Order: sequence, then C-alpha cells, then structure tokens
Amino acid sequence: MSDQLIIFDTTLRDGEQSPGASMTREEKLRIARQLERMRVDVIEAGFAAASNGDFESVQAIAQAVRESTICSLARANENDIRRAGEAVTPAARGRIHTFIATSPIHMEKKLRMQPDQVVEQAVKAIRWARQFTDDVEFSAEDAGRSEIDFLCRIFEAVIAAGAKTINVPDTVGYNVPEQFAHTIRTLIERIPNADRVVWSVHCHNDLGLAVANSLAAVMAGARQVECTVNGLGERAGNASLEEVVMAVRTRRDIFGCDTRIDTTQIVPASKLVSGITGFPVQPNKAIVGANAFAHESGIHQDGVLKHRETYEIMRAEDVGWTANKLVLGKHSGRNAFRSRLQELGIVIGSEEQLNHAFTRFKALADKKHEIFDEDLQALVSDETSPHELEHFRLLASRFHSETGEIPQAALTLAIGGEEKSAASSGSGPVDAAFRAIEQLAESGTELLLYSVNAITTGTDAQGEVTVRLAKDGKVVNGQGADTDIIVASAKAYLNALNKLHTKFDKLNPQL
Amino acid sequence: MSDQLIIFDTTLRDGEQSPGASMTREEKLRIARQLERMRVDVIEAGFAAASNGDFESVQAIAQAVRESTICSLARANENDIRRAGEAVTPAARGRIHTFIATSPIHMEKKLRMQPDQVVEQAVKAIRWARQFTDDVEFSAEDAGRSEIDFLCRIFEAVIAAGAKTINVPDTVGYNVPEQFAHTIRTLIERIPNADRVVWSVHCHNDLGLAVANSLAAVMAGARQVECTVNGLGERAGNASLEEVVMAVRTRRDIFGCDTRIDTTQIVPASKLVSGITGFPVQPNKAIVGANAFAHESGIHQDGVLKHRETYEIMRAEDVGWTANKLVLGKHSGRNAFRSRLQELGIVIGSEEQLNHAFTRFKALADKKHEIFDEDLQALVSDETSPHELEHFRLLASRFHSETGEIPQAALTLAIGGEEKSAASSGSGPVDAAFRAIEQLAESGTELLLYSVNAITTGTDAQGEVTVRLAKDGKVVNGQGADTDIIVASAKAYLNALNKLHTKFDKLNPQL
Repeated sequence: MSDQLIIFDTTLRDGEQSPGASMTREEKLRIARQLERMRVDVIEAGFAAASNGDFESVQAIAQAVRESTICSLARANENDIRRAGEAVTPAARGRIHTFIATSPIHMEKKLRMQPDQVVEQAVKAIRWARQFTDDVEFSAEDAGRSEIDFLCRIFEAVIAAGAKTINVPDTVGYNVPEQFAHTIRTLIERIPNADRVVWSVHCHNDLGLAVANSLAAVMAGARQVECTVNGLGERAGNASLEEVVMAVRTRRDIFGCDTRIDTTQIVPASKLVSGITGFPVQPNKAIVGANAFAHESGIHQDGVLKHRETYEIMRAEDVGWTANKLVLGKHSGRNAFRSRLQELGIVIGSEEQLNHAFTRFKALADKKHEIFDEDLQALVSDETSPHELEHFRLLASRFHSETGEIPQAALTLAIGGEEKSAASSGSGPVDAAFRAIEQLAESGTELLLYSVNAITTGTDAQGEVTVRLAKDGKVVNGQGADTDIIVASAKAYLNALNKLHTKFDKLNPQL
Repeated sequence: MSDQLIIFDTTLRDGEQSPGASMTREEKLRIARQLERMRVDVIEAGFAAASNGDFESVQAIAQAVRESTICSLARANENDIRRAGEAVTPAARGRIHTFIATSPIHMEKKLRMQPDQVVEQAVKAIRWARQFTDDVEFSAEDAGRSEIDFLCRIFEAVIAAGAKTINVPDTVGYNVPEQFAHTIRTLIERIPNADRVVWSVHCHNDLGLAVANSLAAVMAGARQVECTVNGLGERAGNASLEEVVMAVRTRRDIFGCDTRIDTTQIVPASKLVSGITGFPVQPNKAIVGANAFAHESGIHQDGVLKHRETYEIMRAEDVGWTANKLVLGKHSGRNAFRSRLQELGIVIGSEEQLNHAFTRFKALADKKHEIFDEDLQALVSDETSPHELEHFRLLASRFHSETGEIPQAALTLAIGGEEKSAASSGSGPVDAAFRAIEQLAESGTELLLYSVNAITTGTDAQGEVTVRLAKDGKVVNGQGADTDIIVASAKAYLNALNKLHTKFDKLNPQL
C-alpha cells in the first residue's frame, strides 16, 4: 500500500457552503494560491454547474494554479460533467468528481430511480467524465446509510468504467471511528478491482469525530482524505486539514504514511481562510488556535516543565507559528511594497490598482507604527475587488459619543456612483452608523452577527469587523478593516450590502 | 458493566488554566450553578492548595452546589490533600482527586524519586484523603508515557488503599483512539482489583483527537470521562463535554451507555463559559457552534433535503438551541426583573446590589428595544463583582472621530476612589481611549488580544469586548459590555487592569 496520503482540500467547495462563508472569485483565487503553496495534492475549486460565477471561479483557479490538481464537482449528468470538464480544462492536471446518491431513501425520494438505473447512470457519468480527463473521482452520496452490498456493486462498476478514486462520504456525520474503519475495510476487501483505485473519505463533524473517522479510515486503507482548512464546512464542518496532516505526521509510527504538505504554511492558510470568511478560529482549536502551543505563562510547578520535550509533541514553528514579522514602515518605498505583496502571493491586476494600494498603505503607515503581513492582507482585500463592483462605498464619516448624550453618526456614501449623505443617532456609534447607512440604502436586511478582531497585537492595531446580514433567506458576510473601529464597521456593513447586491442563487450539493 | 457514563467536568480547573481564561470566584460560582443545572456528575472546582483564592472558590462552590459531587485536585502530599479536604467539606458529596507522575522522565527529573517511593507516596496520599472522604480519585500524571507494568502496579496499590476512581490522562495529547483503547483495556484486564473502581480518562486535544480518544476508552470499559465545556483547557484544550455527551447519546447503539446530562442545558452552558472567559466558539464547532445546525439557507437541490431526517442526526432544540426569548422590556417591573434573574440562576447578594442592577437594566432598556437573557447575564456580571474590588472604574467618557482628523478620547476614571481625567488621540477611538487610560494607570501592560462580539442580534445589540493584557508573564482577560462599543472597550480594559491588580501567582498542575 502506498505510503503517501493524498490531501484533497474542499475549502472552496464544501467549506464555501457554510452559511455566511461565500467568497468572491478573487478571494477563492487567493486561497487557492495558498493551498498550492502548502502543497495540497487536489484542490476542489467548486461546483462548476452551480452557477456561472462558480464556473468562472473554477476556471480561474485552473488557469492560475500549476502545482495542485484542480477538481470540480459534478452531479452524474451529462451537463454537469461537461461544465466541470470545461472548467478544469486549463489546469495542468484536472479532475472531475462526480457523485450520485446510493441510500434507499435518497434513491427513492430524491432521484426517483431504481438501484439498477443508479448504477447505469453512475457508469455513464464516468464515461462522460473520461472524455475530458483520465482523473475521475466517484462519490456515493449518503454512503453511510447505503447498503454495503449495493455499495460494492456500484463501486465495482464505476472502477471498471475507469474511475481512479472512490470516495466514501459520511454525509451526516453519524459514524464513529471503529465502525467507519470497518466499512472501509469491508469495501476494500470485497470489491475485486479495489486495488485499481485510491480509496478516499469525506467526513462531517456533527459529533466532533470527522478527523478521528478520517484517520480510522486511513488505518483501514484509505489513501485520500477530503478536508478543509480550519474544518470549515456545512453545519459543524468537515475534517480539519491541519489536524489530519499533523496527526499523521506526528504519529507516523501508527499510520505508516505521510502527506506532501508543507506544514509551515498551515497557520498562514488558517489565517487567510479565517480572514476571508470572517469565521474566527477558537483559541483552543488544535494546531491553529491562538493557545494551541501556549501554556499558562510564567507559572510552573517545577523547572522540569520548562523542558520542551516534557510537554510538547509538535513545535509551533513547524506549523507556521512565528512572531509577527515587521515588514514595512512609513519609510518603505513602492518597490518594497510591491515585492512584499508578491512574496505573500497577492496579485494586483493593474498599475493603477497598485498605486491606489500604495497610497492607502502610506496612509495606514501614518496612523500605525508597524505594518505586518496581516495588515497588508487586509489592505489589499479592498484593492483586489474592483471598485466598479461596489455599489455602496464609504466616502466620509463623523462620529461622536459622550456620557449622558445619544451617540451620533454622519456618513457620506457613493451609491451607484452618486454621492449621498445621512445622519442618525443610535444606541452606540456603530448602531448610529448602521442606521445612517440604512437611511440611504433601505436594504431591509437583518443583522445576524457582528464581531471584531484585532488583526495584530498592540493598541494601534487595525480592527477587522465581520458583519453577517440576511435577506430573503440569503446570508452574506461583509468585512472591513480600519484602525478606527467605527469606520471598519461601516465598511463591513457596506461590503455585505455589496455582496447581497450581486449575489445570485446557486446549487449546494450535500456530500 | 454499568450503563451510566459519569461526566466529570473540569472547566473550572483545567479549563481555567488556559492562558487568559482565569475567572473570579463569582464567575466560577455562576458556571458551577449552570453545571449543576446541566446535571454534571462531578465538578472539579479547582486546585485548593494553589492559592487562597482557589481554596475559597472551591469552598464557595461546595457550599452552593447540592446536586453534583464537588472535587478538588491535590498533589500527593499531606498539605495539598488537607487543603482539598477542607475545601470540599461543606459539599453534599465531596471528592479529593490526587495525582502523582508515573513516567520515567517525570519521576526522575521532577519528583527525583525512585518508582518504589512513588508507589509508597501514592498509597499514603489515598490514606490521607480517605480521612476526609470515601470518594477519592487517583491520577497517574503523564500515564501516556509511563510503563504499563508500573501503571498496573501503582493502580493496584492505590485501589487496595481505597481509591474509588482511577484516571488515565493523556497529558500531552499524543494518543490515537485504537492504541489508547488498547491501553485502557489492558489495564482493566491485568489489574486484579480493577473491578472495584470506576475507570476514567482525561484527554488533551493537541491532535484534535481528545473526544475520539475518550470515546474509544469508553468502548474499552472506561465509565468516567473528564471534559470541559467548549473543550476549554490548556493549549488545544480537553475533550468537549458537549461532543462526548451527544456522541454517546446519539450512538447508544454503539456505546451501550448514557449520561445523566440534561442536554437542553448544553448551549446555555457553552454561552456562559464563552462569555465569562472571552473565548469565542467558532461557528463550525460541533454541537455548540452557531452553524452546527444551520444549512445554507434557502437553497436546495431538491425538496427532499427539506425532510429533517434526511440530513439531521440530532435536533437543535435537544441541545438547547432556541430562538432568543424576549424576556423583559422597558415596562418590566422590579419583581419581574428579580424573578428572571433567579430563573437564570443568578444570585445577587444584597438588596442594594439588586437596586443598582435594576437601575442599570432600566437605563439599558431605554437604549435597547428588546432585552434578552444574554443581556441580563452581561448586565449583572458587573454587579456580582463588588465595587470595592475595583481599583479602576469608568465614570464618564467622550469620543470623537471624523474623516481627515485624528480620533480623540477624553475619560474620567475613579482610581482607588480618586477621580482623575485624561484625554488622548489615537489611531482610532479605541486606541485613543486605551492611551487615555494608560496616561492615568501607567500599567505598562501589553495588549495581546482585542475582540468584540454582539451579545444578541440586531444593530442595537450590546457589544461584549474582550481585552487580553500581559504583564511580567501574567495574562488576564477583561470583559466589558455596553451598547456603545468604545465604552465597552474602555470597561474591558479597566476590568483587565483590575484583575492584574488583584491577581497573584498560583500553581497550575499538568494532567
């Protein structure tokens, strides 16, 4: 059995399906470039048939990324597979991942097909996909509640038809390790042509067992794990990439395999995904939480606790925890700025955008003593989304609050190119700012979540605000960063309104 | 074998050891009451010998809680055990949990004892503890790296001496489920008097496997799991109480046992712990994350996805997710206010404190349309910490920020009873406020973390700010809530300064 475990990252597909985690094409591209830098084997870039926007995102990633295989999901029908095939065509290595439901309840109620028809459709799907690429993956949706005999039958058929990877999802996160391992072992033992494919698993975390189930499957012979950065994904999410990778590496003695991942890129990837989606990482999250490598400081029972080997099984620097590195200050020039952006993998389209970003960098450096990588990431987030897509934009603001008085905000916005002003009071200056915006925008949205995190430490840090808005069942996250928290809040609210303004419906498959 | 799994919660001991999660006695009492309401079997209330403050916290909880067993940790020496015994004496049921290291590296380097001496010391410890209570638990520190023969020997000896629970910690989070289960199974099989005790595990989450390891141990015969709310704990934390409880309940078919936990109290407990420690729960956290039961809204492949049973293995309401309940408004009277506090388990000491809290409630109701339980929790957080303990207090404030100008803050504080004012500019109004405070306090602390979460939804929600400060290796979290985010920030900063002002060193054992 191969001693390489294939890491299949689905942050951009299953992760993006988390309510509120939808991303723009530019955001997906930035994450894809970081996944490539981390040496992820397969990037599931999206579900090309879901919408034109999804198609374009998958295609853009297939064009930009050279080192990782780029994959698109597709239902087992000719149209979905053609869209997926077209989207991954520009890739150095393209994969089509097609799926069909195999549990009795899904076959009967959703597909309205007989088991024989389901097998036939799956085999056809593999053949359609093979017209675009040899690298075809097949998933049995709701495998966890499917009959083992039927799974053996359909998997044997799709392997014979040319599938190269067979994926077994635990769609509803109902499995526990011992029993899930038994399922994988049984499939590999019973299916005569099982040795011609890579066995893969895709676990959900509803009972907190996604990583443990994935690792149990690896012990049983699986050699691909589908996972996401920070364990992002629908509901309680998918298996965390960072936990799977570090468990296998730290306990090679048990698992007998390893990944190609450059683990020093794990923390940067975690921060990037958290920043873009606005989903915080809790401090006690394994590997990537702020406390993951922190003991209660300064207090020890005994000197021996200071010996690293006594209480550490991994080193913080191995997963990319390093002190914030001062990269630029107010005297840094345009070339230093440009080359640091390149090192961070941030691509700025035009000279004009670069000029604009540099002007904003200088303005930030006037307010803030030290500029860190995280500040640059936040700074250019705005730049990479073209202004013409911004229906709402903040031009100027004024805030005042004082004990015993009602907080006030006055704002000037550009709305569809036109300049408009409004003033409002509120229960606090943020409330007043949001009310002033609503006077002009009249969006009728509901505020579901408001949170702020400082991007770096120190009192002059920029605050990054996340605002989650809902309207008619659509949920979007907006982000805004500024050293002034009220300005950052207004920007985040406007960013969310801009997303609602352009967002359209799309399909979200359940794997 | 018993079909009851004992839930041993160590949020107040191991959880509190997370850097930045230290709690006041009043905060610990509020959490202990919620743990009792959730029907936790054993509450580890602290480590009585660590400091006078810890002793008083354990004692106060032993006095207040009647339904759960109250436990104190103690090293295996006479003084620690006496302090633990005295602290739990007022409890309806008190337990002493004593421990000693059993791995070669710890015995040699930390204890500087021979294995024979370690066994002898452990047996003595059990006898000392038995003078205070029959309910004695023994832990082998660093059991994961101890020799199995030595573990069998020491456990057999302490069982013979009268220990009732034997705990096997995975101190550094290095174990994986199959192998950890094997360890537990071996111990139970090889130790002749193993059937006279309850076997317990205490797992750390460094590789993301704390819950899976705990559950594997349950399959191998363990009947107590040590865990924490939200998986709080040193580094990547302990096993999550909520995940252990819901896995066992949802998969009773596999585990063959269940807990006494009232699962509808899980989400309230999670919110309380998160609010008090300032540690956010990530949205994709299993069971208690905001998205744990949320599908991407409004978008479905097919009508069948709407059928609950197709994609849900648990119901949100079973773990205490309910819509925010409007409890009080500006017309609510003093009695309604008092009785709602009682329902929430909030005890207000004096009539004067109640009056003060009610005045603040009325002021809040003027600013904020709807008052939820979460608002009340935040409101009384201030009230339950006596003002005489507050060295620094905010009396009045004024903030101004405007495009093109430098943000300004002016504050008046009571410092040790004396009124002082200062004004400062900053990179934003929060920075300006913190600089004004530092002009007066001159604390010389470092700001490590700044975050804000809205307590409820809606633009007029109160913001709850967490500020983490460090000085000379001490780390504290301060919290502040207000509808004005700048005011909340100033309060949080002052709260952290107050904690630094009173905090003293204590011991933090490693299990």
